[in-house]
Amino acid sequence: MKICIVGGVAGGASAATRLRRLDEKAEIVLFEKGEHISYANCGLPYYLGGTIRQRDSLIVTKPELLCKRFRVDVRTRNEVIRINRQEKKIVVRDLKSGTDYEESYDKLILSPGAGPKVPPLPGMHSDGVFTLRNVTDTYRIDDYLLENTPKTAVVVGGGFIGVEMAENLVDRGLSVTLVEYADQVIASLDPEMANILHRHLSEHGVNLMLGTGITGISRDSKGLHAGLTSGEEVDAGLVLLCMGVAPDSHLAKEAGLDLGVNGSIEVNEYYETSDPDIYAVGDAISVTHLVGQTKTLVPLAGPANKQGRTAAENALMGRKVKGSPVQSSSVLKVFDLTAASTGLNEKQLRQMGIPYKKTYVHPQSHASYYPGASPISMKMLFGDDGRILGAQAVGAKGVEKRIDVLAAVIRLGGTVYDLEQLELCYAPPYSSAKDPVNMLGYTAVNILNGDMPVFYAEEVSSLDPQTATLLDVSTPDEILMGTIPGFRSIPLDTLRENLNRLDPDKPVYVTCRVGLRGYLATRILLQNGFRAYNLSGGYRTYSLTGP
Amino acid sequence: MKICIVGGVAGGASAATRLRRLDEKAEIVLFEKGEHISYANCGLPYYLGGTIRQRDSLIVTKPELLCKRFRVDVRTRNEVIRINRQEKKIVVRDLKSGTDYEESYDKLILSPGAGPKVPPLPGMHSDGVFTLRNVTDTYRIDDYLLENTPKTAVVVGGGFIGVEMAENLVDRGLSVTLVEYADQVIASLDPEMANILHRHLSEHGVNLMLGTGITGISRDSKGLHAGLTSGEEVDAGLVLLCMGVAPDSHLAKEAGLDLGVNGSIEVNEYYETSDPDIYAVGDAISVTHLVGQTKTLVPLAGPANKQGRTAAENALMGRKVKGSPVQSSSVLKVFDLTAASTGLNEKQLRQMGIPYKKTYVHPQSHASYYPGASPISMKMLFGDDGRILGAQAVGAKGVEKRIDVLAAVIRLGGTVYDLEQLELCYAPPYSSAKDPVNMLGYTAVNILNGDMPVFYAEEVSSLDPQTATLLDVSTPDEILMGTIPGFRSIPLDTLRENLNRLDPDKPVYVTCRVGLRGYLATRILLQNGFRAYNLSGGYRTYSLTGP
Ligand SMILES: Cc1cc2nc3c(=O)[nH]c(=O)nc-3n(C[C@H](O)[C@H](O)[C@H](O)COP(=O)(O)OP(=O)(O)OC[C@H]3O[C@@H](n4cnc5c(N)ncnc54)[C@H](O)[C@@H]3O)c2cc1C
Ligand SMILES: Cc1cc2nc3c(=O)[nH]c(=O)nc-3n(C[C@H](O)[C@H](O)[C@H](O)COP(=O)(O)OP(=O)(O)OC[C@H]3O[C@@H](n4cnc5c(N)ncnc54)[C@H](O)[C@@H]3O)c2cc1C
Ligand SMILES: CC(C)(COP(=O)(O)OP(=O)(O)OC[C@H]1O[C@@H](n2cnc3c(N)ncnc32)[C@H](O)[C@@H]1OP(=O)(O)O)[C@@H](O)C(=O)NCCC(=O)NCCS
Ligand SMILES: CC(C)(COP(=O)(O)OP(=O)(O)OC[C@H]1O[C@@H](n2cnc3c(N)ncnc32)[C@H](O)[C@@H]1OP(=O)(O)O)[C@@H](O)C(=O)NCCC(=O)NCCS
Repeated sequence: MKICIVGGVAGGASAATRLRRLDEKAEIVLFEKGEHISYANCGLPYYLGGTIRQRDSLIVTKPELLCKRFRVDVRTRNEVIRINRQEKKIVVRDLKSGTDYEESYDKLILSPGAGPKVPPLPGMHSDGVFTLRNVTDTYRIDDYLLENTPKTAVVVGGGFIGVEMAENLVDRGLSVTLVEYADQVIASLDPEMANILHRHLSEHGVNLMLGTGITGISRDSKGLHAGLTSGEEVDAGLVLLCMGVAPDSHLAKEAGLDLGVNGSIEVNEYYETSDPDIYAVGDAISVTHLVGQTKTLVPLAGPANKQGRTAAENALMGRKVKGSPVQSSSVLKVFDLTAASTGLNEKQLRQMGIPYKKTYVHPQSHASYYPGASPISMKMLFGDDGRILGAQAVGAKGVEKRIDVLAAVIRLGGTVYDLEQLELCYAPPYSSAKDPVNMLGYTAVNILNGDMPVFYAEEVSSLDPQTATLLDVSTPDEILMGTIPGFRSIPLDTLRENLNRLDPDKPVYVTCRVGLRGYLATRILLQNGFRAYNLSGGYRTYSLTGP
Repeated sequence: MKICIVGGVAGGASAATRLRRLDEKAEIVLFEKGEHISYANCGLPYYLGGTIRQRDSLIVTKPELLCKRFRVDVRTRNEVIRINRQEKKIVVRDLKSGTDYEESYDKLILSPGAGPKVPPLPGMHSDGVFTLRNVTDTYRIDDYLLENTPKTAVVVGGGFIGVEMAENLVDRGLSVTLVEYADQVIASLDPEMANILHRHLSEHGVNLMLGTGITGISRDSKGLHAGLTSGEEVDAGLVLLCMGVAPDSHLAKEAGLDLGVNGSIEVNEYYETSDPDIYAVGDAISVTHLVGQTKTLVPLAGPANKQGRTAAENALMGRKVKGSPVQSSSVLKVFDLTAASTGLNEKQLRQMGIPYKKTYVHPQSHASYYPGASPISMKMLFGDDGRILGAQAVGAKGVEKRIDVLAAVIRLGGTVYDLEQLELCYAPPYSSAKDPVNMLGYTAVNILNGDMPVFYAEEVSSLDPQTATLLDVSTPDEILMGTIPGFRSIPLDTLRENLNRLDPDKPVYVTCRVGLRGYLATRILLQNGFRAYNLSGGYRTYSLTGP
């Protein structure tokens, strides 16, 4: 059995090692057009920022090891330029010599990844304008930084790589402008959650320009100038284009394989393309979303690695293993904060027409009496049947742990009722006796069973003080720090005595700081005959919405 | 509806607040024999160690708040001394005045907790000998430390509280001897996992005496002297007895309620005792174990809080909510390490006669190329059907996160096959593209489907070099750091060339550092016709077993 693999990194290298483990005898040839294989794409920004100091560290498995230990025929700087499906051959260009040659295969595994999107605007290829995908790009940027010591940078695009690069360029001492066409960074978060990151980026000196596109780049003796859709121009010593990635499917396309969403390679659940002898994995393919059940792109390393592992198993044919749907679990460090999410977000649910409810909580990362606790802002989306559709969290500590737990529950088809029951590890340095994930469960169940009717921050502007009572039950001191315009103050602990001051015919909309006291007030009101609603997430969530 | 609650902390206070939220009108009376309610039991050691500095911090919810906000009639220093079930009354002793009075109830909720076990040995109540359960105990110890400034302490018992106190007394500058009758600390871990803690405790200056009991304590002008089963005597300025806790069920017993395991209060799944008007929760009850399905004691704050919440709901009768079985998820900080576990351990599985398999891995807490990663030692137990029975982990970082994920999977009845599929959050500062939990899944599945026949460290001593080939495939440099006696060296990367040096008729037992290369070697050997077995967890696990 001879298996050729196109692409030598996350999906490709994972397939190669797994193939060898499963089959000592198979002939495995790995083609990589770049200079390096098995590199740490995800570490590249941190090398540029100086956190990772050794160039060596960026290579996860050295080619020698892949050759010697796994007996993989590794061919770097060899680009597969054509697939001849009839003859089961590929045409390969040796980029060192410039010559082409053919190689036969029994099975072919494609893991060519995705390339940075670069819009056809003026000046995108000027000196000092970069994209970041691989080690070579990284060295190129590093060398430019060392030689030109630019003081300023413009990062175009506020996705994962853009935000990571903004941080890392700041770490490297540059003054950074981050330009993003949408009105938020990190599309996997909903806007109010992303807002926490916006503030944090600004606090760390990033000049954040949301709702702003780029129109072109010019270069003169003073440096680079990025033209913006606002008509402004930003000067920079370096421009980094992080405008998303597009599946690298041209080989597949030219070979007549079926393509899917956004030109990605279409595969079935075994990662077979429309040609049963050709498999494809990683950033280049579209995958079924576990929650939404639609085909989508999830260009992340976890799925790519696992798909490579599974495709290898299937390519050997002895076994037929189903790949798992993806659920878009992701995490991002942004200076002192961590942002993580899993499943679908509210924007996506709306777009897909999937009905949902939601809950916000802002618990402490661990017992508040033990030093060092800090708040986590959490949001969870769920169905009327309690099924968990997605979750997001932003905070300084313990963030990804909670999203990992939720990711596991989503994977196993769990509901908000399951979250109530979860028995997670508790000691004061780590959590609270009721973990934040339990709290998401409690509040969601309270919403579902009617114990806590809620309203949401985005509904506040449509509330009419004439027809509804608007109440902030925080303390007067807290209210001095901010309250929602139009909400009157009755501190929770005096509410019972003041019920007679409220019009029994009007619904009462309650808020507090994070939603807990609002809930208590709501319980009191409901049981005294009022129609009452609690602002989910309270003032803290409210203050994150809007411009 | 009038509800009386006995015990004002984890279970009791949780029940009280939940009752009020569900019912504005109920009369709720909370009896607490001590001076404080709603205190942070779990924080007490850290107050003594100086990490928590404010006495105030130890009270989670102030009594005023419980009175005012939740309209709970809080009666501290009031001990319930008798239950009169016929008349549905309790007899209460006001410890301030010494007078007794009666109080009627419609429903009674018992959450009296568990008391420290103190064996009937000489000198257990000497001046300077303490137990630690509540705030009053804490102040007492604190005052003693301040007044007598002892230089040395003996902590008797290596359970959670004993180990936490050993650490905190070291933090406070004392020289600490930890005496434990069993041959390991932290019974929820298996011995080889606990061994990591043993070494760490010793490295931090704790004089650890395992397999050693206490025979009595004497006091003279020079201080305290703890007699040991070894015949030795250890001098100390302070002795802390942390010898486990026993359910405080005497009230229930005297009232003729059914008792269960170890004299605990027996309840059904709704937390009803044998008297349907009396509920019981927390450390005083026995509960069904999710994995073992037997009745057991799990004196932990998470379950106590949740049981209080559920019992409150049931006591109000409108709803009938099933409590959830417990699974013993726990976590402990030991100086720079974290130890966590969930489900059953190997000792328990053996005792219960439940068949199991196991896997060990030692992955990095996050991508090794990103600074600050450190290894986690993990162990997972699972059934032939792949059902996860329990998991343990010890390391410096990211430990409880992995156990939390496993706890969630166990809760939802998941298998090792589910672990393979989990899509957890990945970026270099947080994890690896294949998370340690995935690795547990991969290795377990490889064991189950025969891809990786394994042997275990405890079987090493029964291997006979005459009848079996014993192979360490680590590099020579690594082997200099330690290898298993009798294992010969063939580095993995030269194995294929050396296969002819191995006797094809003998089974091959392979080890390496952590088990990964041993697995690769095993794959090579199996496919070359050898019977081969990989040492699960490799030399690292081996080096943790034995004395
Ligand atoms: C800067 C950066 C940071 C990232 N951070 C994270 C993160 O924190 N978390 C996360 O989950 N994901 C992250 N990712 C995404 C992650 O790296 C990818 O999802 C993953 O690498 C995709 O794997 P793949 O095998 O599909 O493609 P790649 O890993 O990109 O590998 C594809 C390889 O194929 C080669 N190739 C393409 N065409 C050919 C051809 N015709 N012939 C020969 N070779 C070819 C390419 O040169 C390339 O080396 C990051 C990506 C980048 C660029
Ligand atoms: C030092 C220490 C550290 C701990 N650390 C952790 C940890 O890190 N993680 C964890 O999960 N768990 C930990 N625990 C255990 C946890 O605190 C308990 O599981 C939990 O508090 C049990 O709740 P409970 O309501 O059953 O009992 P308790 O919280 O102990 O409350 C019982 C209360 O009832 C009162 N009482 C008893 N009888 C009567 C009566 N007849 N009349 C009136 N009042 C009465 C008692 O005075 C006591 O205050 C720790 C415990 C201690 C002591
Ligand atoms: C590293 C790389 C070559 C894959 O190598 P790999 O050997 O398949 O993967 P890992 O080192 O993660 O090891 C996983 C294997 O070891 C086994 N394993 C892990 N720990 C083990 C242990 N202690 N004992 C026994 N087996 C163990 C697992 O079961 C698995 O084997 P399987 O797939 O046959 O079940 C590939 O992922 C790669 O090139 N990565 C770098 C690029 C990349 O991922 N970029 C994006 C992220 S930065
Ligand atoms: C604190 C204590 C009094 C319990 O108080 P509590 O109000 O029930 O618990 P919490 O503060 O954890 O809040 C949980 C409630 O708030 C709700 N809630 C939490 N965050 C919310 C938010 N943002 N919006 C709306 N509701 C929220 C939850 O749904 C839950 O209500 P429910 O039970 O009616 O569903 C009790 O646990 C106690 O005394 N603890 C200290 C002792 C102890 O536990 N010791 C051992 C550990 S150290």
